[in-house]
Amino acid sequence: MSVPSIRITFHPGSHTVTCLSGALLIEAAARAGLIIDTPCGGAGTCGKCKVRFETEAPSPTATEVVRLTAAERDAGWRLACQTRLLQDACIMAPPESLFSGQHQIQTTSDQDHIRRSADADIFRQYIETAPPALSDDTSDLLRLESALNHRLEGANMTGLTASLEVLRDLGPALRKAGFRGTATLRDNELIDFEPGDTAANAYALAFDIGTTTLVGALLQVSSGEDLAVASAMNPQTAYGDDVLSRIARTSQDDVALHEMQHCIVKAVRDMATALCAQAGVSTGHVFTVCVAGNTTMQQLFCGLSPASLGVVPFVPLFGRGLTVPAAALNLGVHPRAQTHVFPVIGGFVGGDTVAGLLATGMRELAGPALMVDIGTNGEIVLAHEGRLWAASAAAGPAFEGARISCGMRATKGAIEKVIINNDIEFGVIGGATPAGLCGSGLIDLCGELLKAGALGRDGRLKTGDETDGTLPEPVRARLRAGVNGEPECVLYESGSSRVSLTQRDVRELQLGAGAIRVGVRLLLKQTGLLPKDLKQVLIAGGFGSFIRRDNAQRIGLIPHELSHERIRFAGNITFSGAKWAALSRQARKQAEILARQTHHVDLSRDEDFALEFAMAMQFPEVRTGG
Amino acid sequence: MSVPSIRITFHPGSHTVTCLSGALLIEAAARAGLIIDTPCGGAGTCGKCKVRFETEAPSPTATEVVRLTAAERDAGWRLACQTRLLQDACIMAPPESLFSGQHQIQTTSDQDHIRRSADADIFRQYIETAPPALSDDTSDLLRLESALNHRLEGANMTGLTASLEVLRDLGPALRKAGFRGTATLRDNELIDFEPGDTAANAYALAFDIGTTTLVGALLQVSSGEDLAVASAMNPQTAYGDDVLSRIARTSQDDVALHEMQHCIVKAVRDMATALCAQAGVSTGHVFTVCVAGNTTMQQLFCGLSPASLGVVPFVPLFGRGLTVPAAALNLGVHPRAQTHVFPVIGGFVGGDTVAGLLATGMRELAGPALMVDIGTNGEIVLAHEGRLWAASAAAGPAFEGARISCGMRATKGAIEKVIINNDIEFGVIGGATPAGLCGSGLIDLCGELLKAGALGRDGRLKTGDETDGTLPEPVRARLRAGVNGEPECVLYESGSSRVSLTQRDVRELQLGAGAIRVGVRLLLKQTGLLPKDLKQVLIAGGFGSFIRRDNAQRIGLIPHELSHERIRFAGNITFSGAKWAALSRQARKQAEILARQTHHVDLSRDEDFALEFAMAMQFPEVRTGG
Repeated sequence: MSVPSIRITFHPGSHTVTCLSGALLIEAAARAGLIIDTPCGGAGTCGKCKVRFETEAPSPTATEVVRLTAAERDAGWRLACQTRLLQDACIMAPPESLFSGQHQIQTTSDQDHIRRSADADIFRQYIETAPPALSDDTSDLLRLESALNHRLEGANMTGLTASLEVLRDLGPALRKAGFRGTATLRDNELIDFEPGDTAANAYALAFDIGTTTLVGALLQVSSGEDLAVASAMNPQTAYGDDVLSRIARTSQDDVALHEMQHCIVKAVRDMATALCAQAGVSTGHVFTVCVAGNTTMQQLFCGLSPASLGVVPFVPLFGRGLTVPAAALNLGVHPRAQTHVFPVIGGFVGGDTVAGLLATGMRELAGPALMVDIGTNGEIVLAHEGRLWAASAAAGPAFEGARISCGMRATKGAIEKVIINNDIEFGVIGGATPAGLCGSGLIDLCGELLKAGALGRDGRLKTGDETDGTLPEPVRARLRAGVNGEPECVLYESGSSRVSLTQRDVRELQLGAGAIRVGVRLLLKQTGLLPKDLKQVLIAGGFGSFIRRDNAQRIGLIPHELSHERIRFAGNITFSGAKWAALSRQARKQAEILARQTHHVDLSRDEDFALEFAMAMQFPEVRTGG
Repeated sequence: MSVPSIRITFHPGSHTVTCLSGALLIEAAARAGLIIDTPCGGAGTCGKCKVRFETEAPSPTATEVVRLTAAERDAGWRLACQTRLLQDACIMAPPESLFSGQHQIQTTSDQDHIRRSADADIFRQYIETAPPALSDDTSDLLRLESALNHRLEGANMTGLTASLEVLRDLGPALRKAGFRGTATLRDNELIDFEPGDTAANAYALAFDIGTTTLVGALLQVSSGEDLAVASAMNPQTAYGDDVLSRIARTSQDDVALHEMQHCIVKAVRDMATALCAQAGVSTGHVFTVCVAGNTTMQQLFCGLSPASLGVVPFVPLFGRGLTVPAAALNLGVHPRAQTHVFPVIGGFVGGDTVAGLLATGMRELAGPALMVDIGTNGEIVLAHEGRLWAASAAAGPAFEGARISCGMRATKGAIEKVIINNDIEFGVIGGATPAGLCGSGLIDLCGELLKAGALGRDGRLKTGDETDGTLPEPVRARLRAGVNGEPECVLYESGSSRVSLTQRDVRELQLGAGAIRVGVRLLLKQTGLLPKDLKQVLIAGGFGSFIRRDNAQRIGLIPHELSHERIRFAGNITFSGAKWAALSRQARKQAEILARQTHHVDLSRDEDFALEFAMAMQFPEVRTGG
C-alpha cells in the first residue's frame, strides 16, 4: 500500500518538491510555488497549461493526443492539468503557461542558483589561510577577513565582526584545524567556524504556523531546493480551536502564555529535528528559520502576550517583521541562527496573508483581483489599480478537517476529491484506504450532494427516504439516519473503520463558507465593486487538493457570478511565501512593503454585517460554470 | 584638610571636567582633552598659552602682569601655564593657543551640543501618542514609530525594530503610561520605554583599563560633559604585575581566565556604580560603555583567552573593535546597553594606543612627530608624511607608582612635582599631607637628583656622605643609608608616615625609562629618522601631573637632542580617546581607520635590541633645555 515519494524539479526557479507518485502535475507545480494557468478549469479543453518535460515524459493521455501535436508530444510537451507524475522528473513551465502575476515573481526570485544564493544573508566558504608567522602577526579575525575578502568587498562591508561567543572558541579552533575550515557569515558577522569543507551545508527552515495546522519545509540555501516537507497539528488546539479562545486562555495568567508558547515552539523544534533527520542534515547547519502565521499565532510563537488582540480594536504588538536570535526561541538549530517572523497587516490579517501576497504577486495582477486564503481564519485580499485591501473572516477549522466528525488534514488516507455519478466516488491521497475527509474533499462532497439534491439550500442533509427518485440507488443507500436519528452520508465502511459526513459537519461547513462569503461581499462593497467586476480570483489554503470550482461556488465559497476561467487555485501560498522569505533578503523586504501598503478593513464594523451573515447561512442559489 | 572639587568647562568642546581646587589651568585643560601650546615649557615667558575666562578670572600672577596687557587681563585673559584654578569656571581656549593637531579634532568632535548628540547612537525622546481607537488599530510598535518618525527619517531608517525582551513588556507599559513616555532608540531599535519625560537622562561611561590603573568617567550624552571621574587599581595586579605574567596565569586553566575576567569586570562595574552614585544618576540610564586598554587587558575584559598573545608572534584574537551587548558582560548598566571595545593594532600595541591616536589627531601633525604613551606597557607611535608606525616597550608599572616602595597613583596625597633648590621641595596633589610618590613625582625627583649629582649616571643613589660639597646641607641630610645599608632619599617623615626613594626604586625607574628610550631609538632607526628630525614629541600617560621636560630628558625618557618647544605633555590621551568614542559613532569609525592604517613594528626583532637595551641602563649624558 505504500505509495513512493517522487521528486519533481520545476523551472523557472529550480525549485524541487517532494510529492506522492500519482500526483497531478498542476498540483505539484503549486507546491513549488508555480501557479499554472488553466482557463478551462482543468478539463483539458483549452490547452493553455502546456509544460515541457526535460526528463522522460509520461505517456500522453487521450486528451493530450487530441490537444497537442505529435511534434509537441515528442518534444516532451504535456498538459499540466492532465498529466499524473509517476517518477522523478524535471519540468519547464514556460512564461505563457504561468498565471500572470506569478511569472514576474518567479523570475525575480530566481535567476538560477547563483542569484538566489547571493540574496541569502547566509554565506559559507571553505578557506585555507597561512598561520601566523614572525613576519605576520595579524589577528585571528583579520586573518579570516583577508581570506574572505572577496565576499566582504562584494557586499560592501567594512569588516568582519563576531560575537564574544564565537571569539571565545575561535583561537583554539583555528589552530586545531591548521587555519583551514569553513567559515559561516551572516552579512559581515562571523557566526561559525568549523574544520573541513562543509560550505555546501547551509540550510533554512520555513514554517506556516496555522491555527490548526503546521507545515514545515527544509530548504537548501544555495539551490532553494526543498529537501523535506512535513505537517502536524498545532498542539495549541488543546487550548481552544480558534484564536479568540487561545487569547482568552493566555489572558488568565502568565503561566498560560508560557505554556502556549512552549507547546508551539516544541512542535516547531520537533518538526525541525524530524525534517533534518529525514534529509540527513545536521540541525547545526540550519542558520535561518522563517515563520508565517496569523497575528495571534506569531505573537504566541514569540511568547508575546496577545492580550490586546482580544479586545476592541484588536491591536497587534508589532507590525513590521521581527528578526529573533535563535537563543531567544530554543528551536534546536544553529545557536546563532536567526528566526524571521513575518510582518502583519492588522490584528486579524497577519503574516500568513503577507506571505500569500508575496508568493502570488497579487498586487501586480490585472483588473480587480481577489485572493481568498481559506484557513481557520479566512483572509480576503482585494487588489485593484495597484492598491490592496485586506479583511478577515472567522471561517473556523472545518476546511482543515477539524470539528468535522471524520475530518483530517490533507495527508495520506484523506479523501480529497468526490464526484457523484452512479454512486459517490472519491480519490484518496496516496491511493490509500480512506481514513477521513480533508478540506477539499468536504467541499467537493457537499457541493456534489447539493447538486444531486441530497442536501437542501438550508443545509439540511436528507436521508435516502427523503430524496426523490432521480438519485441513483447506491447514493440513496449511503444517506442514512445516524446517531439520534440525524441524517448522515456514509462514504466508506470496512470493519470498524468508517468515513461519513454528518448533519453537524454540514453546519460547520455552512458557518465556514458563510463567513468567507460575507467577507468577500462586504470587502467588495466597501471598495464599491461588485462580484462580477472581478477579473481574477485566487483560492488559497492548505486544505488539500485543488478544489473544484463548481463545488466551491455551490457552497458559496466563491462568488457564483464568476465564470470558471476567472478562478484559479493557488495552493498553500502562505507556505510558499514563507519558503521564499527564508531564502531571500529581497523577499523579506518585499513582504515589509506589501504589509505596510495593504489597507486593513474591519468588516465587523460594517452596518450590514449581521444581516449578511444571517443570509449567508443559506447555500446560494446558483447556476455555476461558464 | 579636605580640598574642594571644582568644575571647569572648556570651549571649544563644552567639555566640563572635575578637578581639585588649586589645579594648574593647563592640567585641567588636558583632562578635558585640550592640549594647550606651551613653547616655553610653562615658564610663563612666551605668552603663547593665553586663554580667556568667561566667568570671573582669578587675580593675575606677577608673570601675567608682565606678559599680558592691562586690557587683556581686564578682558579675562590669563596664561594657562601660570593660573591655578580655585573655583568653578568657564574658560575659552582660542585656536591659536591649541596644539596644532588638537585644534582640528576638537572642533570636529564638537560643533556644540547638537552635533555631538546627533552623532551618538543613543537617542531618547518623550512622546505622547493617541491610544488605539476603533478607527486606528495600528500596532503598538508602529504607533511608536509614527511618533518618532521625524527621528527615524532623519537617520534614513526603514522602520522601528525591537527585541522580544522589549516587546514582551511594551504592550502593558504603553497602556499603563497612557501611551506617553520616554522612548530610547539605538539607531532604529527601540531598546527601552519608560513612563514620564526622562529624555535628558542618557549617559555613557568611558574606561581606560590599564595594566596597573583603571580610570573611568561618567558622561552626559547630550552635552558630552564629564559628570564624574574615578580611578582604581586594576585588581588583576594580584595575578601579576605585567601582561605576560597574567597571560601565563590564564594559560594554566579556564578557571584562571574566568577569575581574571571576573575581577576586572567587577572592578569596572563597581566603578560604574560609584560614578553614577556620585553624579546622582541611575545606572539604568547608562546606554553606552566604551573601553580602551592594551590588547591583553581588552581580551581579558571580554573573557577571551590571551593565550596566543603569550607566544611568538603574539597574535591578537581580534583587530577591529568589538561591540558587545551588556548581557554578555554584566556591567550593571542598562540591560540593552552596548560596550564598545577599541580596535587594536597588534599584540602589544592595543586599544589604548588607538584611543590616544584618536585623541591627539597625531596623524595630522606636521613634520615627523612622536607620541610616547607611558604606562606599564609603553607605546610609541611615529607619524611621518601621513603614515603611522607603532611599537611597544615593556616599561613596567613604575610610572604608575607600582613596584616603587612609596609609589602611589596620581591621587590626593601623591607627591607630583619635585624641585631641588636649597632643600628638596615638592608639590602634593590636593595640597594634602604627602602619602607617596606618583609617576610624575618620581621622574621629577630622579631628574633633580641627577642634576644635583646625588644620583650617578649608572643609577647609583648616593648617601649624603658620598656627595660633594656643592649639595646643600638639607638635601644631604635626606640622603641616608637605609635598610641593609642601601642608600635612600627621604622626602617626608612624620611619626610613622614616611615617603622616600630607595635604590631599588631608582632601578625600577631605570628599567622603565630605558625601555622607552630603546623603543624610541629603534622605531626611529627602522624608519630612517634621527631623534633630531622630530618636529614634535607628545608625552602621554595617566601618571599624574605634567612632567618637567628637563627631568624627563635627564632620565632618558625623551630624546635629549630635542629642544623644549618641540615637546608637549598631552595627559591621559587613552582616557580622552575613550571618552570621545563613548559619545560619537564618528569617533569610533575614525578609531577603526587609525588602527588599520598604523604599521606595527616588532622591536624585539631588531638585531640591535639587546645591545641598545644594555646601553639604556645608563642615564644619558645630557645637556638639556633649549
